Amino acid sequence: MRDAVPLPARTAGAEAAPPDPALAEDAATALEELRTAAPLVQCITNTVVANVTANVLLAVGASPAMTDIQGEGGVFAELADGLLVNTGTPTAEQRGAAYEAVGARQRAGRAWVLDPVAVGALPVRTALARDLLRHRPAIVRGNASEIMGLAGGAGGRGTDATHGVDAARDAAAALAAQAGSAVAVSGPVDLVRAPDGGVVRVPHGTPLLTRITGGGCALGALMAAFTAVRADPAAAATAATTVYTLAAEDAAAGCAGPGSFAVALLDRLHTITPEQLAARAELVREEGAR
Amino acid sequence: MRDAVPLPARTAGAEAAPPDPALAEDAATALEELRTAAPLVQCITNTVVANVTANVLLAVGASPAMTDIQGEGGVFAELADGLLVNTGTPTAEQRGAAYEAVGARQRAGRAWVLDPVAVGALPVRTALARDLLRHRPAIVRGNASEIMGLAGGAGGRGTDATHGVDAARDAAAALAAQAGSAVAVSGPVDLVRAPDGGVVRVPHGTPLLTRITGGGCALGALMAAFTAVRADPAAAATAATTVYTLAAEDAAAGCAGPGSFAVALLDRLHTITPEQLAARAELVREEGAR
Amino acid sequence: MRDAVPLPARTAGAEAAPPDPALAEDAATALEELRTAAPLVQCITNTVVANVTANVLLAVGASPAMTDIQGEGGVFAELADGLLVNTGTPTAEQRGAAYEAVGARQRAGRAWVLDPVAVGALPVRTALARDLLRHRPAIVRGNASEIMGLAGGAGGRGTDATHGVDAARDAAAALAAQAGSAVAVSGPVDLVRAPDGGVVRVPHGTPLLTRITGGGCALGALMAAFTAVRADPAAAATAATTVYTLAAEDAAAGCAGPGSFAVALLDRLHTITPEQLAARAELVREEGAR
Repeated sequence: MRDAVPLPARTAGAEAAPPDPALAEDAATALEELRTAAPLVQCITNTVVANVTANVLLAVGASPAMTDIQGEGGVFAELADGLLVNTGTPTAEQRGAAYEAVGARQRAGRAWVLDPVAVGALPVRTALARDLLRHRPAIVRGNASEIMGLAGGAGGRGTDATHGVDAARDAAAALAAQAGSAVAVSGPVDLVRAPDGGVVRVPHGTPLLTRITGGGCALGALMAAFTAVRADPAAAATAATTVYTLAAEDAAAGCAGPGSFAVALLDRLHTITPEQLAARAELVREEGAR
Repeated sequence: MRDAVPLPARTAGAEAAPPDPALAEDAATALEELRTAAPLVQCITNTVVANVTANVLLAVGASPAMTDIQGEGGVFAELADGLLVNTGTPTAEQRGAAYEAVGARQRAGRAWVLDPVAVGALPVRTALARDLLRHRPAIVRGNASEIMGLAGGAGGRGTDATHGVDAARDAAAALAAQAGSAVAVSGPVDLVRAPDGGVVRVPHGTPLLTRITGGGCALGALMAAFTAVRADPAAAATAATTVYTLAAEDAAAGCAGPGSFAVALLDRLHTITPEQLAARAELVREEGAR
Repeated sequence: MRDAVPLPARTAGAEAAPPDPALAEDAATALEELRTAAPLVQCITNTVVANVTANVLLAVGASPAMTDIQGEGGVFAELADGLLVNTGTPTAEQRGAAYEAVGARQRAGRAWVLDPVAVGALPVRTALARDLLRHRPAIVRGNASEIMGLAGGAGGRGTDATHGVDAARDAAAALAAQAGSAVAVSGPVDLVRAPDGGVVRVPHGTPLLTRITGGGCALGALMAAFTAVRADPAAAATAATTVYTLAAEDAAAGCAGPGSFAVALLDRLHTITPEQLAARAELVREEGAR
């Protein structure tokens, strides 16, 4: 979603397959289960988006905790229902906490989500994110440039994508082979690739998500929340993307700019219902993707 | 206020005593004095809520400064009119600044406020918060689980309360005996316990305060602001709670969700008048509490 | 703009000279060029305002990146189109990153902006900001108290100005002599002083900018963005101030308080057009200032 590219027509090109209602229904059920479970989600994330990330989780019905200091990262990861590690402002203290936390999750065989913000050109976070792959994140989420940067390519210049979603397909396959992860590539049409190669496309959202900070980062946190109610990482990533991008689509309608959009997004994440998701989400399973 | 429990009927159970207009009038006068004084409030607080905390202080009429690095924590605490220490993301740098600051306040015999966020299960902040009690905070503010965690109980799982306000009564008494502090317990009906055992209940607020991050943390900062105009810590905590929860009640009316609630809360904190407080606050002094 | 003093009548006193339409037209052209260039702006800034700063840059059309850790500060400064160093919460990690970044900019002969938040009374940031002057910022932006504090005076108490804009004239001249910088002094009528002594006044804005955190800090980041399209530092500072204060003026009209003002400001920064700037900005070049 951080791509500044306009939304393509939804039925163009390779996405000509019809929507699969079963995918929309699973996202709807997952939302209902998340609101009942109110999962505790640990976020080791950047200081720029910590506030909006926490508010997105609260609006949907989860319980955020930004426990990101050394000596607490691992302890809390044992308690938490979900874990996000985001490399946006990876101070030495946060890097220490991240290693504690992902180590605890891996030892317990529990899911965690990696968001490799701006990985590629910047040395500290690139080394960190690639090393964290050894601890096998359930989901890796980023824009195309970040996914390519993590897999060994050059990446983008900053936090904005300079590549289209489909350019990241090989990189997503490489990450699945290396770490066993589902890979979610944010863009005008989001793509979720399961570890076995199955691909689902989520053709919702709004370019306004690229005009507020944390538009992508908060989605990574939401994926961590959904791992608490979906053991299948690709299903968790798909449900989170569906809830988030449909709410964003609604929030964009009638707002006056990025300020009022951000407000409306939190409101809509709070009020959107499983029934609305099931009725409106047009998720497409790619034919023969695997 | 971070409890997700619905608001009880205001006159139920032990709170059958009638509201005391003198309490509401003191809160109103304190607000007027705060707007005249525009106190400088130092906040050593977590990165997630720093922005909303500063905006709450500015909206009410105080002047925030998040001076939280080593080498400046103590210097600034000597200048500031109020001080908050919040343990939400206590990095090593912030812990050092906190010790500098509370040491300076204690040497000068001046008030400071402790907000023991998520104290209980997490080792670093729990040790920090308990140790800071030696420097005798004027006010300790938290939800019931945090107050219990600070006093030696298990606490909650994260930042959400898992106990009701009344469960924290013994813990509040223990903190008063140990550190001489007033204790403010946030919940559907907030409770402020004076060091001598007197109890005031503030039956205002909205469950939406539990759906935005910083809903409780900003109240701790507001208490620090009110210590600049009220030497009695329980009066400062009561005035802050009254202004904040009444403004929140008004903000919740007619808003579309947590996003627009957060916006309306800042607007209402800016516009609420002492006269409105005096007319509408229904503060109850508990009979025979001490 | 952080002064809490009411706006004076626009034509009073020394500013009796008529507006210069060429100044307004250059600001308008610069805005158009900025939206085309979408410059990548590195911000080493305080945790309180990082979110609003990023959102202001995104709303206008720039691309923010808060790359502020050691080991990345310099690498990114070589890639970025603009750089801001703000001393609001200067942790040891940020100080290290700031030295890396400004060193890289100076070696490359490229512009950077210094915002000396609360410099004067606080020892760590005051030493840091004065030392950073050796690396010759293109622009120094602050309120009058901060500019005076940086130049060797006592400064203010916190982040609020305790001096009027004109009190900082000698300090601005001293900074120009020492570091060759343009100096922008925020206040009810903003003042931009070129290194050669030329002065432009920007008589727009709203006192509400002093009631939201980051009201001044975000302007410093916007100046860094405009250095990507204006080689003349005073022209970059003037364009940024004009866009920002005119958008703020519009946002203040009809808003209900600081919460809705902050939202409307982001909306308006997104929608304001070069044509509106050219038609409405009343920038005054001071007669005989140099």
